[in-house]
Amino acid sequence: MKRQHGVILALDETDPEKVRSVASAVAPYVDAIKINWPLILSAGPAAITDLSALRPVICDFKLADIPNTNRLITEQAIRRGASGIIVHGFPGTDSVRAVVEAAKGAEVFVVTEMSHPGGQEFTAPVADRIAHMAVDAKASGVIAPATRPGRIKEIRGIVGSLLILSPGVGAQGGSAADAIRAGADYVIVGRSIYGAPHPAEAAKDVSDVAQSAMKK
Amino acid sequence: MKRQHGVILALDETDPEKVRSVASAVAPYVDAIKINWPLILSAGPAAITDLSALRPVICDFKLADIPNTNRLITEQAIRRGASGIIVHGFPGTDSVRAVVEAAKGAEVFVVTEMSHPGGQEFTAPVADRIAHMAVDAKASGVIAPATRPGRIKEIRGIVGSLLILSPGVGAQGGSAADAIRAGADYVIVGRSIYGAPHPAEAAKDVSDVAQSAMKK
Repeated sequence: MKRQHGVILALDETDPEKVRSVASAVAPYVDAIKINWPLILSAGPAAITDLSALRPVICDFKLADIPNTNRLITEQAIRRGASGIIVHGFPGTDSVRAVVEAAKGAEVFVVTEMSHPGGQEFTAPVADRIAHMAVDAKASGVIAPATRPGRIKEIRGIVGSLLILSPGVGAQGGSAADAIRAGADYVIVGRSIYGAPHPAEAAKDVSDVAQSAMKK
Repeated sequence: MKRQHGVILALDETDPEKVRSVASAVAPYVDAIKINWPLILSAGPAAITDLSALRPVICDFKLADIPNTNRLITEQAIRRGASGIIVHGFPGTDSVRAVVEAAKGAEVFVVTEMSHPGGQEFTAPVADRIAHMAVDAKASGVIAPATRPGRIKEIRGIVGSLLILSPGVGAQGGSAADAIRAGADYVIVGRSIYGAPHPAEAAKDVSDVAQSAMKK
């Protein structure tokens, strides 16, 4: 991903018609479109291919399986047109390495910690170890919560020049400007773009905020 | 799932033709068919519906997302015909509870620990806590590795009357008889059934072993 707008659309809609219209309207203002399993289960895997004609698609599949299954999923996502894939670090280094190898140059992002309350139970205590693992496994970057800019800063200290993608901006309470100032490269924004009366304007607004935070 | 054969087919093929032929041949000898994301990405989500016409389908989706996304995935899997779904415990209790609630009576199985080498890094140290969580969250059962019958026994001590499903039998080195004697209710068998020259015979053989181990 070239750094251009600093915004990734989390397209968490499942109605294929709505997905198409939001993606087309928003495409000029975002760097990538992040999709998740609910869309695959509603629209089928061809959604990856369709959306990748508009913008690079990141499959937020939160892969968490044994190395061979992680590999098979990654291969198929890439074959369908995905430019990036999101994987959990929790199942271990070999599972992450399998994704990096299978991605053949597509981008791989490792979840460090999760922003929901349950994320404090098991993922937060090992988040720093997982950030180190992402570096060792030669991932492209990590996912760190925009709702906790302090954590983004600490994780930036671990991952060096790796990309940091930060979800939780907007409806979930995180600020795009704060996340970027803390060290995030891209903010991931969902509902406050696709749920807005004018998604394109909402995307442009977040993009402007991200751009201006980057300049400071 | 009624306890009848004690064998679940892990249908890890991705060629739709092969999937159909193996599933039809093996259906009379297994209690359920377990499928994973690679099949969804190759054959589309209709595979859930098609296979559920033959046997109950367990979606081994290893869900590991925030509660709302876990819920959306579960709802769609059930709507497509799934009888059960597999979820990770490490994203926290709220993520597991969201699946149990969305499943509306369909069976929910929580992964305790994973049997591959990387599973020792983060999952094994918290496996017992996750087994307790499965009980608290009112899951139907847990996944515990057939390759480590000692662990099945310990996890049985935690989960009481919950179901234990044990993968790793056959090609991965686990023994169906050992796993069932240690306390597993069902063994999950993949390659040594679907990769056999006569999958139906191979399934019948494992089923006989499981049955006879149960009687002891």
